[in-house]
Amino acid sequence: MIITEDKLRVFTQSIFTAIGCSPEHARLAADVLLRSDMRGIDSHGVARLSGYVRLWEKGRINPTPHIRVVHETATTATIDGDAGLGLVVAPFAMQVAIEKAEQYGSGWVSVRNSNHFGIAGYHALMAVEQDMIGFAMTNASPLVAPTFSNERMLGTNPMCYAFPAGKYPPLIVDMATSAAANGKLEIAQRGGKQVPEGWVQDKQGNYTTDPHALKSGGSLLPLGSDHEHGSHKGFGLSATVDILSAVLSGANYGPWVPPFVAFLEPPTDPVGQGIGHFLGAMRVDGFRPVQDFKDSLDNWIHRFKSAETIDPNQKVIIPGEPELEAEQDRKQNGIPLVDAVADDLNELAVKFGLEKLR
Amino acid sequence: MIITEDKLRVFTQSIFTAIGCSPEHARLAADVLLRSDMRGIDSHGVARLSGYVRLWEKGRINPTPHIRVVHETATTATIDGDAGLGLVVAPFAMQVAIEKAEQYGSGWVSVRNSNHFGIAGYHALMAVEQDMIGFAMTNASPLVAPTFSNERMLGTNPMCYAFPAGKYPPLIVDMATSAAANGKLEIAQRGGKQVPEGWVQDKQGNYTTDPHALKSGGSLLPLGSDHEHGSHKGFGLSATVDILSAVLSGANYGPWVPPFVAFLEPPTDPVGQGIGHFLGAMRVDGFRPVQDFKDSLDNWIHRFKSAETIDPNQKVIIPGEPELEAEQDRKQNGIPLVDAVADDLNELAVKFGLEKLR
Repeated sequence: MIITEDKLRVFTQSIFTAIGCSPEHARLAADVLLRSDMRGIDSHGVARLSGYVRLWEKGRINPTPHIRVVHETATTATIDGDAGLGLVVAPFAMQVAIEKAEQYGSGWVSVRNSNHFGIAGYHALMAVEQDMIGFAMTNASPLVAPTFSNERMLGTNPMCYAFPAGKYPPLIVDMATSAAANGKLEIAQRGGKQVPEGWVQDKQGNYTTDPHALKSGGSLLPLGSDHEHGSHKGFGLSATVDILSAVLSGANYGPWVPPFVAFLEPPTDPVGQGIGHFLGAMRVDGFRPVQDFKDSLDNWIHRFKSAETIDPNQKVIIPGEPELEAEQDRKQNGIPLVDAVADDLNELAVKFGLEKLR
Repeated sequence: MIITEDKLRVFTQSIFTAIGCSPEHARLAADVLLRSDMRGIDSHGVARLSGYVRLWEKGRINPTPHIRVVHETATTATIDGDAGLGLVVAPFAMQVAIEKAEQYGSGWVSVRNSNHFGIAGYHALMAVEQDMIGFAMTNASPLVAPTFSNERMLGTNPMCYAFPAGKYPPLIVDMATSAAANGKLEIAQRGGKQVPEGWVQDKQGNYTTDPHALKSGGSLLPLGSDHEHGSHKGFGLSATVDILSAVLSGANYGPWVPPFVAFLEPPTDPVGQGIGHFLGAMRVDGFRPVQDFKDSLDNWIHRFKSAETIDPNQKVIIPGEPELEAEQDRKQNGIPLVDAVADDLNELAVKFGLEKLR
């Protein structure tokens, strides 16, 4: 099914309204999911909508959260998301960071008691729109084993850094700190394909190319894949995300992070509240005039785009470019939904008495 | 040769004094190098001392820099290192970040016109000593090719994040954003060994296990090694370091970063001044009471240390642990210097009329 952005947006908003979100929150949550679908990150868009609904049905998402600052200084804050959708909690937190940055040059917010926040890039780009550098991180349900371990201890814990450019679009590094994100395994599963060695290990810690290994007790590997190739660095980055997002805010960390899927119960011995995020904003003109920075970053991008290539048909890709290309394509041609996702959304339509997507 | 910390410190300090550094700067520069040797990071300690001296001989290091803030807000600053040793410029910058954090919760400093700053961990730990979270990054001479390229465009651009714990030592993630640091290739060269596939490519962009490939026009690979295993993520992290350190401060970036080795001339078309660093400090109590954070981080460390392991003899390593073990060992048993480094230091002794090391 190919669907227009507008149609999918209205539909998504209606679902969030149906579970009790305010119009403002429903609009915002839909905006975060749609941005992901528009940018070609299908795993984090409306494909997850039914997941959020099932968490709400279990009482694990509060549709009317009282999101509040519980601790702060001039440039730092801890926010309690009141078990709300991460899709609305994270933009609230980034807004706090931006306001602090406007006044003092930078702002940093650690968030507890939240849920899955969608794509990190959405939040980081809020800062970029204000000529700031945006930082966004979140911890997530444990799927990744540290180097030398076969136990799921960390989420795919993404890091995102976003920078405003001038004539080029923003440069956005938005990456899971695992070798491969879970979504890539799911694609291989659907296609009946093997995955490359270095993405996943089985329950005993043997490398495997079976994309189903994760479902049978296996674990994802950190960026770097094995110790010889620097998996301890991927582990270190993931640990950094976990500590900034959760140890700093009082959210659950490591293996205690509650699962996103509703059919798995959260640990009965939590060490904090909900999941955690970390958002930051720094004013570019806190360091140098904005135009100077943008001119330099344009030159950086230009130089890297014209780097020598091994294959003349495969140029160097600037971080954020593929997502931008997807956005331009989907604006023009609509968003393709695989059958499983379209069916999933239409089940939600039936559940809430809404018109089905066609 | 095995040498005590004190003896090597006095010697190193004398060399810095001999090239014209003030007593205070000589003490500080020696402290940064010694910390590296003590922590077992031999590639970044006194092994580089003759390199700094050769840069000074070429007039590329200013032994009496006027390091100054050239732009600032309450919590951000740009510092001009006046072509000084990064070993003294970076601690100055971190001190500025710490003072801003004391007053406003966080402080962030981008540095231009500097030189190699030693180990990132030294600077980040300055923040940890004040119960702050420390960030330290630097760009470096181009050795690493972006994904799909065979051109040296980036340094091994390290990222460091350091966190104060309670009963455990600080957790320190201090990592090159390449699959392997250059020092590891040098060790393989000296030992006449091959390196694993995924560390380096030859001039044409073919993977190779020849540790000499770098010297004959090859390049290091970003963390992740190849696109399938996420090398675009390693590239993205390296780009982030380069932009925060140099595009933000007005230092040279990408392929324009001047080489550390004195026998290679800097590019004749610089895009900025010297090399760049990025330092940051956030007060832990800007987010929650320090003891709460330390208790949680202790629990995090305890849980990760007791994670299930694949090999019962190889436990999970907490970031920073190996360096701490080296420090304890070397405090007791002294610092081992390979012959090449001992000879190098003794040549310096002769050059400056100092007593040789024995």
